[in-house]
Amino acid sequence: MDQEDHQSRPLQPPYLGQVLVIRPPPVFVVHEQYISTKFQILKAYESPLPTHDFLEAYAQSVKVVLCSANGPITAAVLRDLPALQLIVSSTTGVNHIDMLECRRRGIRVTNTGDLFSDDVADGAVGLLIDVMRRITGGDRFVRGGRWPATSVYPLGSKLGGKRIGIVGLGNIGSSVATRLEAMGCIISYTSRHKKHSSYYTFYPNILELSVNSDALIICCALTNNTRHMVNNSVMRALGKTGVIVNVARGAIIDEVDLVKCLVEGEIGGAGLDVFENEPSVPKELFKLDNVVLSSHSTACTRECFYSAAQTVVANLEAFFMNKPLLTLVS
Amino acid sequence: MDQEDHQSRPLQPPYLGQVLVIRPPPVFVVHEQYISTKFQILKAYESPLPTHDFLEAYAQSVKVVLCSANGPITAAVLRDLPALQLIVSSTTGVNHIDMLECRRRGIRVTNTGDLFSDDVADGAVGLLIDVMRRITGGDRFVRGGRWPATSVYPLGSKLGGKRIGIVGLGNIGSSVATRLEAMGCIISYTSRHKKHSSYYTFYPNILELSVNSDALIICCALTNNTRHMVNNSVMRALGKTGVIVNVARGAIIDEVDLVKCLVEGEIGGAGLDVFENEPSVPKELFKLDNVVLSSHSTACTRECFYSAAQTVVANLEAFFMNKPLLTLVS
Repeated sequence: MDQEDHQSRPLQPPYLGQVLVIRPPPVFVVHEQYISTKFQILKAYESPLPTHDFLEAYAQSVKVVLCSANGPITAAVLRDLPALQLIVSSTTGVNHIDMLECRRRGIRVTNTGDLFSDDVADGAVGLLIDVMRRITGGDRFVRGGRWPATSVYPLGSKLGGKRIGIVGLGNIGSSVATRLEAMGCIISYTSRHKKHSSYYTFYPNILELSVNSDALIICCALTNNTRHMVNNSVMRALGKTGVIVNVARGAIIDEVDLVKCLVEGEIGGAGLDVFENEPSVPKELFKLDNVVLSSHSTACTRECFYSAAQTVVANLEAFFMNKPLLTLVS
Repeated sequence: MDQEDHQSRPLQPPYLGQVLVIRPPPVFVVHEQYISTKFQILKAYESPLPTHDFLEAYAQSVKVVLCSANGPITAAVLRDLPALQLIVSSTTGVNHIDMLECRRRGIRVTNTGDLFSDDVADGAVGLLIDVMRRITGGDRFVRGGRWPATSVYPLGSKLGGKRIGIVGLGNIGSSVATRLEAMGCIISYTSRHKKHSSYYTFYPNILELSVNSDALIICCALTNNTRHMVNNSVMRALGKTGVIVNVARGAIIDEVDLVKCLVEGEIGGAGLDVFENEPSVPKELFKLDNVVLSSHSTACTRECFYSAAQTVVANLEAFFMNKPLLTLVS
């Protein structure tokens, strides 16, 4: 594919159809060549035009958009694309898409299903062990040449016997629970409804879960109900040795409260893969040794990205060939 | 207890007996107050005398030594202590003690049993996830302010489906296996003998295990048979994406070969809690992003140290009260 002039060139074989990319999703960045052999990619981000003007220029032709959390599909974007029929997201969460407006206009949305669940769960467990057992801080201690002068690095906290509160017992939350049970942790959870298939202790709200937990693992979707759900009260209920791991979405935690609680020692530590204003991370966290920071990458494995690219391509092929979509978000 | 003049003071109540400490074990550093209320601690490390002279001065009275890996009890030390009857180690491994000489002289040795196994296993799993999922490197990436300019941090490797080779299927190795099975890993192992109680695939030697593994977790004891067992051939058999985690003893790996293989990319990464000449760590490793370094601290949790101090005290009490030792090394 000649990427230099694709915008001016009409759709040609062997392309199945035209796909708009406003901002390139990480999965697209890694697997651009594979995806680009099948579809004509319209790259708004390579155009000198402002996005609105670019979209306007292609308004009548664009039927499909490929996106991820780094490029929100807002009501304004949707207004600019009157012919839009399908949004393919290379993510599991779709909170970056105005779903209400999509429903109103009959625009279908696909995600990647639960492809990432195991890897996100592994990442959550890795962050929890890292914070409790001080792995990243310990690595700085050794690399900084401080071991010879200080015989004992500050002790960590045992995983076994700790009460872990899972916030959202979906695919990811359940996978986290299985892993931590194997380490002797005691699992409880909160979610919209009690899961009758689960034997873990259920708490009806996050405050009660927090009071009864040594660590919280945030695994739920970001919705109007969960936004800023983890606030100052929840963190104080967790207590001074409590740990928070967030592998869901940054805005589920009130980030101002979180930074304050961490800086003032109101909670014991945090493993954070997500932030309210990514890729911006509060600078106060950079100084803390009891915090592990990650760049929204608990789903970022080579294996997962390849599977996600395959899912993206399969949904696009299905759309252009009038077949049922594989991972339609209802 | 007045620690200033205890060396010159005769043993007094409520002390049960006198305990020599040549170099303070980390467990003793953390729980000195607790241990010192029951026993008169003779601190060689606080004396201006050279160790040999100090030991000579107390040669006839010292019946008990408290030690750990940071203070080897060599044949020379044992020669200086003709009245020695008991060595209490605040560790699980006793490779820092000349066991042959102890056996010849009838000196008994206690360790901490398998008190540390779960924590060391958690640490091993944490190091493996960290290396494969690039957690510590990712933290440096975020703290270094590199996220905004680089949308995708280099992808990690999925845990699920990976073939993990456990070197030494004792308490620690078995605990590591249980944890990694919960993450969908495929476990095999090598050890002196095939364990008939285990359903994991057994390989008779480390080279065959390495050829058939994506990662090796070193959990065996350091003996003459295991010293430098993980050498250049084993690492090349593991291959360019292979990962090594060592939570056992540094000298099980040929450290010169390890550094060379890591620097030259002959293996994919390493999580190292132990080194050949602790606390000295090869400086070449400090530059590598695919290596996680830890200060012999996978057993270092508050909970474990407290239990270890209790075991140390219980063994000392048993000795001085002529009762059976709790965790005698046979």
